[in-house]
Amino acid sequence: MDMEFINPFLIATCNVLKTMASIEAKPGRPYVKKDENASGDVSGIIGITGDTQGSLSITFSAASIKAIVSNMLGEEYKEINDDVRDAVGEITNIISGDARRMLFEKGKNLNAAIPTVISGPSHTIKHLSNGPCIAIPFETDAGPFVVEVCFNR
Amino acid sequence: MDMEFINPFLIATCNVLKTMASIEAKPGRPYVKKDENASGDVSGIIGITGDTQGSLSITFSAASIKAIVSNMLGEEYKEINDDVRDAVGEITNIISGDARRMLFEKGKNLNAAIPTVISGPSHTIKHLSNGPCIAIPFETDAGPFVVEVCFNR
Repeated sequence: MDMEFINPFLIATCNVLKTMASIEAKPGRPYVKKDENASGDVSGIIGITGDTQGSLSITFSAASIKAIVSNMLGEEYKEINDDVRDAVGEITNIISGDARRMLFEKGKNLNAAIPTVISGPSHTIKHLSNGPCIAIPFETDAGPFVVEVCFNR
Repeated sequence: MDMEFINPFLIATCNVLKTMASIEAKPGRPYVKKDENASGDVSGIIGITGDTQGSLSITFSAASIKAIVSNMLGEEYKEINDDVRDAVGEITNIISGDARRMLFEKGKNLNAAIPTVISGPSHTIKHLSNGPCIAIPFETDAGPFVVEVCFNR
């Protein structure tokens, strides 16, 4: 999997958080994920089909998602409640849609399933593709989060 | 969403656990999930696209999945390690494939993304479809697990 496939997810993540939550997300260097130990407190996951099968996940620390959703909805969220989970699903869906639109312009036709949102302290995610899984770490003023993108070969 | 859409997932789950792990899974009465509080220790999730978008999850207690994978691989698993997570992904994939085959025979054409596996004590899953989410509780001699199926309207 080359970076041409990954960059749209990186760009979409920055765009969506800026537009929806006025949050500046600074991407770190993407790396090939060797284990599933990147953990977080709330994650959005969306399955991808079409020209290839894959999955996208976004895993937030509690601190980062509370700040993002508070900005997004204009109200302070002090815990991960149902509103926060719905917002994580919406963010995941919109990032997936924006990235798939960019990939479509490069000739890749991809569809998305519905998002699922996982809550639970320090859960981990393993993507079972037969291709590499790329993790993109992000920093925000409120804490880190990680985007993971995996596609079958 | 009518039971014609749900029964293939119920039947596939029983079939796959019987065939792969010699485990008798007794289904309880399916119900419409009102919140995301059904929790477990390891879950397989797979996104579905095609004639409709949806997602399937299978959430196991630690006790039930250790017994299932120990039977399946012929070796005793005392903790949820990478082998167990891979087996959860495989079980999820095969149940999805078997159910989609049955639905195809009823005229529904569905595709699946790659499975993702979540680990973490007492995590919860929320499916963000605009249609109802149906939960099917199962009992095994080693403990319970829950299959959840959601499709957009």
